[in-house]
Amino acid sequence: MNGKIYFSYSMIHRTIKKLSEEIRDSGFNPELMVAIGTGGFIPARIMKTYLGLPILTVGIRYYNKENKLQSEPERIQWIDEVEEKLKGKRILLVDEVDDTRSTLEYCLRELIKQKPDEIAVAVLHKKEKPKAGKIPSAVTRYFCGETLPDSWCCYPWDALDIVEHERIANQG
Amino acid sequence: MNGKIYFSYSMIHRTIKKLSEEIRDSGFNPELMVAIGTGGFIPARIMKTYLGLPILTVGIRYYNKENKLQSEPERIQWIDEVEEKLKGKRILLVDEVDDTRSTLEYCLRELIKQKPDEIAVAVLHKKEKPKAGKIPSAVTRYFCGETLPDSWCCYPWDALDIVEHERIANQG
Repeated sequence: MNGKIYFSYSMIHRTIKKLSEEIRDSGFNPELMVAIGTGGFIPARIMKTYLGLPILTVGIRYYNKENKLQSEPERIQWIDEVEEKLKGKRILLVDEVDDTRSTLEYCLRELIKQKPDEIAVAVLHKKEKPKAGKIPSAVTRYFCGETLPDSWCCYPWDALDIVEHERIANQG
Repeated sequence: MNGKIYFSYSMIHRTIKKLSEEIRDSGFNPELMVAIGTGGFIPARIMKTYLGLPILTVGIRYYNKENKLQSEPERIQWIDEVEEKLKGKRILLVDEVDDTRSTLEYCLRELIKQKPDEIAVAVLHKKEKPKAGKIPSAVTRYFCGETLPDSWCCYPWDALDIVEHERIANQG
């Protein structure tokens, strides 16, 4: 739909179910999730239903209050007592979309500093496009629910009119 | 349905829309949300679409790993550099359901210690039942999307089979 892809909540829930099964079948056995806010909140919360893991959250933003892109992201929230919570743990970092990969790279690099035993990434969607960011080599596993062409993703949680949004998504 | 109430994602999204409009119309002008994890993650993320506020999160649990109720909740995550982030701010605490009210009371008391300028509560659902917890008197506003009889709430994010869940929810 005009270079935009509309997702219903039900589609996303089913993609997360499939993704969770893939993670379980991979042999990776994470102890906790770290959700990147605010895009990762809903995917991570649905994933909790299937994987049963606690969720920690981190929030960053690349745009300041004047909507100007900053070279370094601002931390909206990070994890307190980080070392105790992440050191030696198997962590699954969750976000909604691997777009430019900059946010993923930033968060992975910061979390790796805390010496987890293993860290993996799970994204609902991966866009097929050149990536500005890199997945650090310490990350051995990358899971994605669905690979998409480089288009504008319209997520249901961003809908002002959810009935109309779901109608368009279901026409898809 | 057998003392259970099933909610579809669309129902919840529409309730949050109405709740957000009520908050805006009330004259309360929060600067940030604090979502109680993990129940408040999805309501808060949808509310962000309508209120445009940053989301911080806190996570607690009353049950330990052996599933035994503890008198004091364990903090899964709290807000680092809390004072700087909450002091003098107008805060909206968000959760999915006001059930026994214990979690709300605990979180409100802890957040009030950080001296916000104002703190209010918004819950998607309030259950009509005797409450073990109390809303501290420092909290001047309480918003709820819908009041329910004391029943088991089946939220879509907890569904193992979302298609079946939404089918039951839509039968109402």
